[in-house]
Amino acid sequence: MRILSLEIRVVLVEPMYQGNVGSVARAMKNFGYSDLVLVNPCELEGQARAMASHARDVLEGARITSTLEEAVRGADLLVGTTGASSLKTGEHIRLPLYPAREFKEKIKEYSGTIAVLFGREDNGFNNDELKSFDMLITVPTSEIYPIMNLSHAVSIVLYELSELEGGNNPLAEGFDLQLLYGHLDELLEEIDYPAHKKDKTSLMLRRILGRAGLTPREVQTLRGIIRKTERKMGFATEAENLQKVEDSESTEKFI
Amino acid sequence: MRILSLEIRVVLVEPMYQGNVGSVARAMKNFGYSDLVLVNPCELEGQARAMASHARDVLEGARITSTLEEAVRGADLLVGTTGASSLKTGEHIRLPLYPAREFKEKIKEYSGTIAVLFGREDNGFNNDELKSFDMLITVPTSEIYPIMNLSHAVSIVLYELSELEGGNNPLAEGFDLQLLYGHLDELLEEIDYPAHKKDKTSLMLRRILGRAGLTPREVQTLRGIIRKTERKMGFATEAENLQKVEDSESTEKFI
Repeated sequence: MRILSLEIRVVLVEPMYQGNVGSVARAMKNFGYSDLVLVNPCELEGQARAMASHARDVLEGARITSTLEEAVRGADLLVGTTGASSLKTGEHIRLPLYPAREFKEKIKEYSGTIAVLFGREDNGFNNDELKSFDMLITVPTSEIYPIMNLSHAVSIVLYELSELEGGNNPLAEGFDLQLLYGHLDELLEEIDYPAHKKDKTSLMLRRILGRAGLTPREVQTLRGIIRKTERKMGFATEAENLQKVEDSESTEKFI
Repeated sequence: MRILSLEIRVVLVEPMYQGNVGSVARAMKNFGYSDLVLVNPCELEGQARAMASHARDVLEGARITSTLEEAVRGADLLVGTTGASSLKTGEHIRLPLYPAREFKEKIKEYSGTIAVLFGREDNGFNNDELKSFDMLITVPTSEIYPIMNLSHAVSIVLYELSELEGGNNPLAEGFDLQLLYGHLDELLEEIDYPAHKKDKTSLMLRRILGRAGLTPREVQTLRGIIRKTERKMGFATEAENLQKVEDSESTEKFI
């Protein structure tokens, strides 16, 4: 039975600088990958380990092969990475060239093992290598200086491929936001905000707060500020009465 | 006349390894950026130049400052980058934390100068530094090993931002934002906001407004609302006297 998952293998072809190999190991672990294969690498000693930092397990677990064929054995799709600038020569070999982000869209429905290959720091891949790949991808860069450091290129490709989403900021619920907006409108009334400007200003406040993406705690704090302001102005509002319990139970506790 | 474009400044706070500084310069040039500021950097010699490769111009053009304040002078929005893992302590300082991609979505309509700040390789930013930022962003990583190499983090953030072309909404200038923040603090005083909660609430207000990316007109409107509120509460503040002329000349006209 075929396991339905997408495995990513990183293959470095004849990397020349051990610091880069260590940095690649680190970037892999940062994005949750560990399958590293090195084809005829440079010597790997102290500097590789130093740059790998806490990804020494990935570095030490790397498989070393003497040929590209061995390195990609068992992989279902061979994806080479290349700089867009190298397109000027041998276009028939290299095209089409997908940006890493588009590549991710193309493969997201698939399962299997994808070997993502990176060439030598100085000369990339030779033509025979390029011909053996199923797809070519690139990281879009400035035309003025398109040649990225090897580990940076690996890092960006893995960043794109990883499904890590991060950022779990809970947004305030729409209902609470409406209460806040209503409360702000009430304040505009209370401070005798000019009638002809009130609607536009009310809308502007909604826009500002809307795009700030308020958290529940922030909504509570903002309403607390408005309540205290109303109290200071001598207004005891309906909102205040309704909110008294909440005030002592939640706002005080959270802020 | 304000130029409508989005400028990105990269600020490295006390980078410890010259190889990283060189790699950052290279990544910047790869994505078309050149405005680099270094706050109290390590020595920059042969290794920095070697890692900068063909971006020696960016490295040599870097501005070196002794304080963070100098480094961000003239910037309209201060955006700190931090690992998601550091969220465990001091959540009120760090939250909310936007993934780099989401950040890009938030700012794509704006123009102005954005300083993107990166902390020390070992300890990131201290709390005072974190508090001075308008927004915090992160690169989503594996929980197992979330600590990225500095230049990789810069590279991915710039990769995300580089598709930006600048929109048509000019950001309010940093100076005007500070006046607004000061005005809000004044209001908290006037409404007798509890002293033990005031600092946190003041910080929260900065965060909300910082990430909303206010336009100059919005800053004026918000200050107008605060002034009218102060007036209603019976306070005739210094700010009000200073702003009277402006009030009739600009706020009325715009809203």
